[in-house]
Amino acid sequence: MTVALGLDPGTRHFGWGVVERRGTRLVHVAHGVVDTDEDAPIAVRLVTIERELVEVVRAHAPEVASVEAIFFAKDPQAAVKLGHARGVALLVCARAGLDVAEYPPARVKRTLAGSGRADKSQVAQMIRVVLGLAAVPPSDAADALAVAVTHLQHAAITAGMKGNPRR
Amino acid sequence: MTVALGLDPGTRHFGWGVVERRGTRLVHVAHGVVDTDEDAPIAVRLVTIERELVEVVRAHAPEVASVEAIFFAKDPQAAVKLGHARGVALLVCARAGLDVAEYPPARVKRTLAGSGRADKSQVAQMIRVVLGLAAVPPSDAADALAVAVTHLQHAAITAGMKGNPRR
Repeated sequence: MTVALGLDPGTRHFGWGVVERRGTRLVHVAHGVVDTDEDAPIAVRLVTIERELVEVVRAHAPEVASVEAIFFAKDPQAAVKLGHARGVALLVCARAGLDVAEYPPARVKRTLAGSGRADKSQVAQMIRVVLGLAAVPPSDAADALAVAVTHLQHAAITAGMKGNPRR
Repeated sequence: MTVALGLDPGTRHFGWGVVERRGTRLVHVAHGVVDTDEDAPIAVRLVTIERELVEVVRAHAPEVASVEAIFFAKDPQAAVKLGHARGVALLVCARAGLDVAEYPPARVKRTLAGSGRADKSQVAQMIRVVLGLAAVPPSDAADALAVAVTHLQHAAITAGMKGNPRR
């Protein structure tokens, strides 16, 4: 049994999702989006993100965290802002003793939608199907759930290949 | 009397410096560099940075923090990494109730060395002179002291222009 926390960092909207593997089944546990005050300084928004993530980790006690690897060519200003939120996320996870696995965005898309070029709405639709949700989650939460699912499936495959099942 | 904390974020070497304004004098209080374990995951290094910065804030009780604004065109990968360290720094400051002032690198250089194009060694040399230090500080700490000095001089000028001296 493994509980994975997936993270989709952003300073305005920070998505998170928790998925549990029970045997071969993937079970949705919870998801959400931390929306920060756009009028507040970035430093204050990071405090909000930290507080909410600490609470998510406390509430759901994940055993591992996962996040998309940095793998894009946005402008440096946007990249630094993403880095701010991502840094706080890594900090919260490391303090809680969680390893943070990273997956390239294309692998997350391929895992969920069968193609590395799938768009966000396809990924969100597939998350709904894979986890048997009544509704499509908000985009940032769907991305977070997707990276958690990617981690759990990857871990399962890796364990299978090694002939050494993980807990 | 104002005590300013200057920060020069980096995931490997994180510089900090504390400078106090007493009337028209700038007085060096302390500086240092947080060196993290290059073999450790970034998340673990961020925990080290957080812990050390919390201790710096506790020990020196600055009234304001300052950091260079993001204003460059490095590649996005480097920018995200810088953002990680910078985000943790902003978080620590905001949690401690410190406002974080941002200054463009060119202004910091101009304030210290008289030119926005001064190189790092010139800035470090001028920090030694301005603060009357026995030796030139390490590069990362010198940059941190420089942004603290920039803040204190800028605040003094602003206060003077307004005819409304700050504490």
